[in-house]
Amino acid sequence: MQVVDLIQTKRDNGELTQEEIDSFLQAFVKGEVPDSQTSALLMAIYFNGLTDRELLNWTESESRLSRQVNLSDLPGPKIGLQSTGGVGNKTRLIVGPLVAAAGVTVPMIVGRRLAYTGGSLDKIESVPGFKTQMTAQEFKALLQTAGCGLIGTSDELAPADKKLRPLCNTTATAENVPLIVASALSKEIAEGTDGFVMDVKTGSGALTPKITDARRLAQMAVSVGKRLDKKVVALITDMDQPLGNAVGHALEIMEAIETMRGSGPEDLVELCLELSSRMVCLAYPDRTMESAKDQLFKLLNDGTALQKFRRMVEAQG
Amino acid sequence: MQVVDLIQTKRDNGELTQEEIDSFLQAFVKGEVPDSQTSALLMAIYFNGLTDRELLNWTESESRLSRQVNLSDLPGPKIGLQSTGGVGNKTRLIVGPLVAAAGVTVPMIVGRRLAYTGGSLDKIESVPGFKTQMTAQEFKALLQTAGCGLIGTSDELAPADKKLRPLCNTTATAENVPLIVASALSKEIAEGTDGFVMDVKTGSGALTPKITDARRLAQMAVSVGKRLDKKVVALITDMDQPLGNAVGHALEIMEAIETMRGSGPEDLVELCLELSSRMVCLAYPDRTMESAKDQLFKLLNDGTALQKFRRMVEAQG
Repeated sequence: MQVVDLIQTKRDNGELTQEEIDSFLQAFVKGEVPDSQTSALLMAIYFNGLTDRELLNWTESESRLSRQVNLSDLPGPKIGLQSTGGVGNKTRLIVGPLVAAAGVTVPMIVGRRLAYTGGSLDKIESVPGFKTQMTAQEFKALLQTAGCGLIGTSDELAPADKKLRPLCNTTATAENVPLIVASALSKEIAEGTDGFVMDVKTGSGALTPKITDARRLAQMAVSVGKRLDKKVVALITDMDQPLGNAVGHALEIMEAIETMRGSGPEDLVELCLELSSRMVCLAYPDRTMESAKDQLFKLLNDGTALQKFRRMVEAQG
Repeated sequence: MQVVDLIQTKRDNGELTQEEIDSFLQAFVKGEVPDSQTSALLMAIYFNGLTDRELLNWTESESRLSRQVNLSDLPGPKIGLQSTGGVGNKTRLIVGPLVAAAGVTVPMIVGRRLAYTGGSLDKIESVPGFKTQMTAQEFKALLQTAGCGLIGTSDELAPADKKLRPLCNTTATAENVPLIVASALSKEIAEGTDGFVMDVKTGSGALTPKITDARRLAQMAVSVGKRLDKKVVALITDMDQPLGNAVGHALEIMEAIETMRGSGPEDLVELCLELSSRMVCLAYPDRTMESAKDQLFKLLNDGTALQKFRRMVEAQG
């Protein structure tokens, strides 16, 4: 495989074969491809996109490069949450413990920030001593103890995503719809979930400011998820204004805690309940959104979610 | 200046300011910009092009980074030859000495190959001991002695071009019409010529296989040349088949010598006479193409051009 030929194919709007994508990503993760070539390929993909087949192959190749957390012997459903991020977005910190409080295991392997949006990882690391690097085994033990967990991508877990993100951020290629989908799906495969809810942000603070791009992203996630046997629900949510009142890692953690004490800002509470109830309905297809939302509202306000959050923080050091 | 912002501007089809282009190229030549960012920018330019103003600014910025060879105190006209290259193309090796034999000074600062086309530099270096790295002063002395000279870009002469080429070759961004024009023009400014003939190749062995791209390139070269006070004539020539019979550096040098002995392949002889007579007519606007072609035909067949070639090779070691 000559990487320059792959770049040229994509530049000229051709289709990459499964073998080409696979050998590229393998070589990339091993550090054998110069960053200059990877970023040229990313920019060509930005302009010409990926075909359905390429996207499926890209996602599967990314997944094969990652160790999979085997959650099959853990009781109950396992549901993930993916978000395209956005300024002031701290939903993951609330939704994870909240859904876990409703009896669903919520594994969250997350990357650093993409472009100007803050990543959940950067936020949670403002908690002193919080451990975000774990092996697949340690992560499984964490989920067994706490019901949810939030760790970073590593050389073992989603290594392609870990290496791609910093490159995307410095080369203006983060806003790359098919690659955002591939990244989300490959992390869900690594986490061993049954399905996940994808929160697609749109508006001025989001990776996909245009609603058409957000819709395209949502549809792609659902259709590729289906082909990979993942139940996917995608929501498009507004990010024209920062979510809640706090922007900045430590402040956002505090606001998340406030929310789990029952006194969060309205927009944040609403979004968290919406996402959580979708996750609970994915986990238990017989439940209605109304009953799920009622239950989650209680769990958020009676301190159960905060207790789960505390257990997660304790279990992660 | 944040390079990522420049990439994003170009990605979103915006226009870069003179200051942005200038600081980018300065930092690039100093080695302060990661190749990943430069190649992402090159790919964005590949897709969205450069506006007339950007192209002018890019060319001028490239020129400012280079030392200029001052040929103003050399008698007679100075005319350059630019070519977009192509498989089997060895015209420069013949046209330079031939036009010099007609009394015109022909400075040729050339880069390495672009993409799959062989560069003149790679060809001439198959002559053992041929010196292709010179200071501006040494190059001027060479032109005084031999009437023509063929050297490579260096940290002093066209440094941006020297650094951009290898990156273009590995990232499938060599076929970048505005940047080919900027490269040609900035080298002509460095050479201190009055004007130049641009040989734009089209067809399967060329950087611009499509005739529409070749035409666009030719028009751009002429119009930007005009704004920079360079007389430019651009020819579009066919490169569907390798030129002449020889492909490969040493073989091509031998074929060039055969041609200057009066027994060259017809297509090569024809192209060389066409380019040379255009150059002579640029140098002496009162002459007709017919009279120029007659004179050059004689100089090619009576050994005068070969003598000039020998003098150049001797003077370059």
